Amino acid sequence: MNNNKWVYRFQEGSKTMKELLGGKGANLAEMTGIGLPVPPGFTITTEACRAFYLGGCALPADLMEQVVSALQAVETETGQRFGDLENPLLVSVRSGSVDSMPGMMDTILNLGLNDDTVRGLAESTGDERFAYDCYRRLIQMYGNVVLGIPLVHFEERLDFMKREMGCTEEGEVTAEGWRRLIENYKTLIQQETSGAFPQNVMEQLEKAIEAVFRSWNNSRAIIYRKAHRIPDEVGTAVNIQSMVFGNKGDDCGTGVVFTRNPATGDKMLFGEYLTNAQGEDVVAGIRTPLPIRRMEQQMPDLYRQLTELADKLERHYKDMQDIEFTVDKQRLYILQTRGGKRTPQAAMRIAVQMVEEKIITKEEALLRIDETHLNQLLHRSFDSSAELDVIATGLPASPGAACGQVVFDPDTAEQWKKEGKPVILVRTETTPEDIHGVIAAEGVLTSRGGMTSHAAVVARGMGKPCVCGCEELSVEDRAFRAGQRLILEGDWISIDGATGQVIAGAIQVKEAKLSSELEQILHWADEVRKLRIMANADNPDDARKAGMFGAEGIGLCRTEHMFFGADRLPVVRSMILAESREERMKWLAQLLPMQEEDFAGLFRAMGGKPVTIRLLDPPMHEFLPNLEELQQQYYRALEHADQANLVELEQLIRKVRSLHETNPMLGQRGCRLGIVFPEIYEMQVEAIFRASAACLSEGIKVAPEIMIPLVGHPQEIRHMRQVVDLVAERVLGREQNAIHYKVGTMIEVPRAALTADQIAEHADFFSFGTNDLTQMTFGYSRDDAEGKFLNHYLEQKLLPHNPFQVLDREGVGQLIEWALAKGKTANPLLRTGACGEHAGDRSSIMFFHAAGLDYISCSPYRVPLARIAAAQAQLLIENVR
Amino acid sequence: MNNNKWVYRFQEGSKTMKELLGGKGANLAEMTGIGLPVPPGFTITTEACRAFYLGGCALPADLMEQVVSALQAVETETGQRFGDLENPLLVSVRSGSVDSMPGMMDTILNLGLNDDTVRGLAESTGDERFAYDCYRRLIQMYGNVVLGIPLVHFEERLDFMKREMGCTEEGEVTAEGWRRLIENYKTLIQQETSGAFPQNVMEQLEKAIEAVFRSWNNSRAIIYRKAHRIPDEVGTAVNIQSMVFGNKGDDCGTGVVFTRNPATGDKMLFGEYLTNAQGEDVVAGIRTPLPIRRMEQQMPDLYRQLTELADKLERHYKDMQDIEFTVDKQRLYILQTRGGKRTPQAAMRIAVQMVEEKIITKEEALLRIDETHLNQLLHRSFDSSAELDVIATGLPASPGAACGQVVFDPDTAEQWKKEGKPVILVRTETTPEDIHGVIAAEGVLTSRGGMTSHAAVVARGMGKPCVCGCEELSVEDRAFRAGQRLILEGDWISIDGATGQVIAGAIQVKEAKLSSELEQILHWADEVRKLRIMANADNPDDARKAGMFGAEGIGLCRTEHMFFGADRLPVVRSMILAESREERMKWLAQLLPMQEEDFAGLFRAMGGKPVTIRLLDPPMHEFLPNLEELQQQYYRALEHADQANLVELEQLIRKVRSLHETNPMLGQRGCRLGIVFPEIYEMQVEAIFRASAACLSEGIKVAPEIMIPLVGHPQEIRHMRQVVDLVAERVLGREQNAIHYKVGTMIEVPRAALTADQIAEHADFFSFGTNDLTQMTFGYSRDDAEGKFLNHYLEQKLLPHNPFQVLDREGVGQLIEWALAKGKTANPLLRTGACGEHAGDRSSIMFFHAAGLDYISCSPYRVPLARIAAAQAQLLIENVR
Repeated sequence: MNNNKWVYRFQEGSKTMKELLGGKGANLAEMTGIGLPVPPGFTITTEACRAFYLGGCALPADLMEQVVSALQAVETETGQRFGDLENPLLVSVRSGSVDSMPGMMDTILNLGLNDDTVRGLAESTGDERFAYDCYRRLIQMYGNVVLGIPLVHFEERLDFMKREMGCTEEGEVTAEGWRRLIENYKTLIQQETSGAFPQNVMEQLEKAIEAVFRSWNNSRAIIYRKAHRIPDEVGTAVNIQSMVFGNKGDDCGTGVVFTRNPATGDKMLFGEYLTNAQGEDVVAGIRTPLPIRRMEQQMPDLYRQLTELADKLERHYKDMQDIEFTVDKQRLYILQTRGGKRTPQAAMRIAVQMVEEKIITKEEALLRIDETHLNQLLHRSFDSSAELDVIATGLPASPGAACGQVVFDPDTAEQWKKEGKPVILVRTETTPEDIHGVIAAEGVLTSRGGMTSHAAVVARGMGKPCVCGCEELSVEDRAFRAGQRLILEGDWISIDGATGQVIAGAIQVKEAKLSSELEQILHWADEVRKLRIMANADNPDDARKAGMFGAEGIGLCRTEHMFFGADRLPVVRSMILAESREERMKWLAQLLPMQEEDFAGLFRAMGGKPVTIRLLDPPMHEFLPNLEELQQQYYRALEHADQANLVELEQLIRKVRSLHETNPMLGQRGCRLGIVFPEIYEMQVEAIFRASAACLSEGIKVAPEIMIPLVGHPQEIRHMRQVVDLVAERVLGREQNAIHYKVGTMIEVPRAALTADQIAEHADFFSFGTNDLTQMTFGYSRDDAEGKFLNHYLEQKLLPHNPFQVLDREGVGQLIEWALAKGKTANPLLRTGACGEHAGDRSSIMFFHAAGLDYISCSPYRVPLARIAAAQAQLLIENVR
Repeated sequence: MNNNKWVYRFQEGSKTMKELLGGKGANLAEMTGIGLPVPPGFTITTEACRAFYLGGCALPADLMEQVVSALQAVETETGQRFGDLENPLLVSVRSGSVDSMPGMMDTILNLGLNDDTVRGLAESTGDERFAYDCYRRLIQMYGNVVLGIPLVHFEERLDFMKREMGCTEEGEVTAEGWRRLIENYKTLIQQETSGAFPQNVMEQLEKAIEAVFRSWNNSRAIIYRKAHRIPDEVGTAVNIQSMVFGNKGDDCGTGVVFTRNPATGDKMLFGEYLTNAQGEDVVAGIRTPLPIRRMEQQMPDLYRQLTELADKLERHYKDMQDIEFTVDKQRLYILQTRGGKRTPQAAMRIAVQMVEEKIITKEEALLRIDETHLNQLLHRSFDSSAELDVIATGLPASPGAACGQVVFDPDTAEQWKKEGKPVILVRTETTPEDIHGVIAAEGVLTSRGGMTSHAAVVARGMGKPCVCGCEELSVEDRAFRAGQRLILEGDWISIDGATGQVIAGAIQVKEAKLSSELEQILHWADEVRKLRIMANADNPDDARKAGMFGAEGIGLCRTEHMFFGADRLPVVRSMILAESREERMKWLAQLLPMQEEDFAGLFRAMGGKPVTIRLLDPPMHEFLPNLEELQQQYYRALEHADQANLVELEQLIRKVRSLHETNPMLGQRGCRLGIVFPEIYEMQVEAIFRASAACLSEGIKVAPEIMIPLVGHPQEIRHMRQVVDLVAERVLGREQNAIHYKVGTMIEVPRAALTADQIAEHADFFSFGTNDLTQMTFGYSRDDAEGKFLNHYLEQKLLPHNPFQVLDREGVGQLIEWALAKGKTANPLLRTGACGEHAGDRSSIMFFHAAGLDYISCSPYRVPLARIAAAQAQLLIENVR
């Protein structure tokens, strides 16, 4: 370890050294490098932090030696000396991690002051009051950060002193007042730590460095890292910089500016400043800062300097900057700069403007758009200025904001909707019978059920906000309780499906739309990307919406959703309850024209673009009433000796029980249904071909792709393909050649991936169903895992991400790569795609692109995100090459 | 196709050509080759059969040419001519498939007779009656086999003729009688087919060949192939052989002999014969044949010849032979020989004797033992002579035969058992609460539940017969109904867990034991095999049994079975229902000494052999009462306004519901339990180490291996290993070094196999849990698949085998091979095994051996099978090399 270079002077670094020097350190070095007025200093590396933790929270042996040497260089630059009695150098010690963690770790200012040097500072600045104010600030921060004494103890003593001295504002406190407070602080430290505040300035510095390293693992930093998926093992750098002061008088000041408006993206200096203040005062909110335009009037020269520097920084970094500056006796110093946080709207506008200003290329603009912005591009959201009275939080099942009057049953929902009232449907959980209520509602809220519960799936499919599994909520008779709050039918609530929040009252909702900047960026994305973007859509409305958002076809139409319609469900039930094949055929014959119309509607909406139709997938019992409810009905009928009802209920219960499965996810569903009851799939395929023929005769092009779900063995797809071809021959006859249909399969069972070569021999396309593939590869039932052990795993960091949100590359990804390689070898014409929820997640899209998929299919609202992410993936790969 | 050789004369073939000539053809060729008296003939190949089917059931163009040429050679050998008016050659046409399918396909005899040649036969044999009898037999067989006329039509006419002629026995029928019958048969054929019986002998032959080819696909052949797992696409050969006659007078005869007793294995000629009869007469059972010893008296010279030939054949084929012979006018002919079917007992004895007689080597003896014999080696079975009054058939859940008086609840079972009555426990389905009843019962019968239902798993674990999912059975109040039959409590029934049969009355049961011959063979197997054989055992009794059967350790102890004990379950339930960690710890403290005693018992029983203990695996709710039953209780309490009970039930229902999972197989179980509730696994690990220390202090060696179930991510095993090591340190302190414990994991989640390299870094061993691995790789819930769509798949041949019985090499096997390669690369010391039910299946054991596993672990009763199968696997691999 002896040869390690732990310390870099600002002159030695650059912005490319962020891993080693942290974001702030790299930036200070970069700014120093390009000649900006940065107070001299140096950075202790993140490597030193890791060595600190490896050594059991001890600084590496030779670290302080290197610090001293770097400090000497700073002394030379500033003409001051650390610990000097006449013109003492003061320094700040600040954390600086690789990924920005604003305010999460500790900072100490004014290091280098003690009972002796404070007098030197007073003399050299000619401002005794300022010097002792600095000193008391040091003792306070040191006492809190290094010695762990709660801030409140210091604040109490400050207040006491102010009262004693008859001051209301800190500005009124005299040097004497600060001196008294300093004595008082020293006593406090003696009491709390049985030791004195160190007069040795090197000891101050060493202890401060240790404290900043330790603050990497304070609880708020840990929580922040978890929320932002920042790895724990990186550690922080420490920046030691000579102090400049914005609080030496009215010709001093400090401020923060953005080079553009972070809310709207408008090109203008945007920010605030305070005269005679330190940066901490701006942050702490003790005094209200002034808008930056006022500086133009107060310090026109410095304002011009600042404007020029801001422009220089923006052009240098090629991004909108968030800059901290200080004016120390008419001299402008830049203390920090970084990419500024902005709203999604601002992000789009800035990106487009910067391309127009030739600061960045289109490609850079595309790469600039981050995941959070992508996720918020299109869903309706609450006005960000609104105050939210959050009464409960559930699972964020389907993003978007909704607001309406509470109803508790689907019929009321439908009725009120007709009367023009917006409603939120609140249920313990939803069933297929509630579908008309879900359609009528602005949003859905349930107290039970996970991210794949009926409510969640249906709502997501419709792009409708949904909060589910909100267990704090207890649904009672025409009312629900959330903690102490009772919400009655007709009361207004709002739900945010992106955060899971349930809010009392009506909150203003903003509509989603494609702004002209976003349209521009999407256009650039389309020029770049190789991955085709399709959409999941089950009805013509969704299909049209998908087309509007740029989908190149339908990659997944879930036909079971068509079975839940109010006119369909009774027929579907009769079909399932049929005692013989003949009887089942009779009910299927009734469904045939309905399905034909369903498919014709999709073909018309897509006008010749591919429409991938997945044949019936879920287990039969999903279409039947819930067993527990039936039994309750049964006991009620028993009580009332309702004989007729009893017989019927008994029959129904028997059938529902006979269809009951221990693990329905792994039961009789998907093509297993189609193989055991071929007449069901035959009806669906017939409807597809009839619809195709009908559209053709209207002059509408069709490109049906029939997708067989849950294939695990080559024999299944071989068999089903035969069935499709036979039906095609029977239904289409001579027209068969005019309709170029494809037959493919979902790859969602591990065995399908493992035997992909054999399966590919019978398939025109593979569509990876990453939801089920993740469930089976992990052995996780999503319904049972999320909100239960999976949360625990994520908290304990046994898993890096929720694998249902971010595709697991090591396990599931391996299977996908394996299947692609085998499948394309066996069938070079094989087209490959993915249609799980991962297809709407940026990081997963990166993987899909890298793995070489031809297309992905996501919900209509995720299509714009996917178009950009696909372009980013392509650009990143080109960059690597 | 023109250059194909479709026909082989017997002189041209040998026993190595079974694939081409079928079993019978190869044997006839072999026998001809070693100079046995085989009637001359030739064989049409299985290739010709495949060509026949490929050509749309038409004989290959040049086939009959080759037949004619081979027939000419036969004419030369016999001195007769086919179709000759004076000394006509007659031939038989018989099927002969590669795998024996006795009696499943068709045969036609006496081909070559017509209205003219029959007179020649009468003259050349001097027996008119015989000649016309032959002719009418030909017409009858031809009419039935070639023309498809039901046999009953011929039999009616035969009976009519006999009545007309005043005969009771066929022997009394005169030539005139046969001639009349022949005319009658010809009329029948004319009526049924609008065509005549062909007088052209070559036409007879050609049509007969076609008919035999077609009979490959008659329904009984198809069913037989399915039952014996014979592939459909192989086809049959056809053997054409000159006729010899055992029915030309009392100096003629025919018979079947085994070279050893097929029931006991005793070395003695065993069989039957009939004088003046054809082989078909023996098979048809029209006349009762005589024991072969009588031939010694009647035809001493021929008997000696037969004995010598039998001995020659047995030595030549190195196996007990089943020989068909005919004596035609004092000349002995061998018509067929093949390996004789035998009981498992006989198989063992014959194998050992033949080694002693130096006919075969030990290795050959081992390879001789087939799967069916292995499967029946050790379970109790019904006396094979007993007549069974089968009243219902369920799933064969746990093999073995049991017989006892019917009881319907576990308490009665226990009570009656104490009174000395053997009982069969009959339940709709069993729950953990029934465990004492299962222990008390001779066997278990349920009307619901599949092969992994509670009853099945528990019964198999105990080696106790079980029939489950017997849906024909309806359990009523103290009685059950099976079809028309009503069985009351106390009635005797018998169940066969190997066939699923439920039998009225008490059937004599034979105990399983290791015969001295089996012991000998197992000893040989142990010398050969490389695979170590461990056993699955959850209690000292099973462990001792496993040791007795030769297990080298316990490869799987399922600790959850210990939780089902009557003294444990209430504590386990309280533990699960605990509202806080503290409360849970209290109950766990009660379980600790019980578990300690459990493990100590196992260690004592195994005396230093490895004991692999799997920590708690099943989801919690398996230990709780069934929700549906609770609700019924609740409604009953509601009816009786039983307030106290209501509150308790409500609470219980709430907890059970909160633990309810949609797909429990993929829910909170395995190490997910141990991670979310670490205190449970800590208790178990503590018990293991306490028991280890206790045994050590008694001077008993211990080798505990702690197995973590359901690992899917390396972090899980890393985390659990830390927990184990910490508990070891805490519990054992200094003794830690004296106890060499191992920590390993089940590989039963696909992701574990995919990331086996990372997992192996933290594991001392892998044990492939092939049951769950199969479930997740296929996406099949075994409970929902078996008896439902899986049956359909097997019937439709979409799957070659039930993957829960025979390991799926292509999918699951690929994952295993992958995991082994990755695991051993990352950790060369890794030990690997398998502990699913496949570990007791011969074909799967072959795979495990070939894949390079170190050990397998199966139920104690399967240990002998596994020892032999492992030896066979090693020998087969050596043979290939």
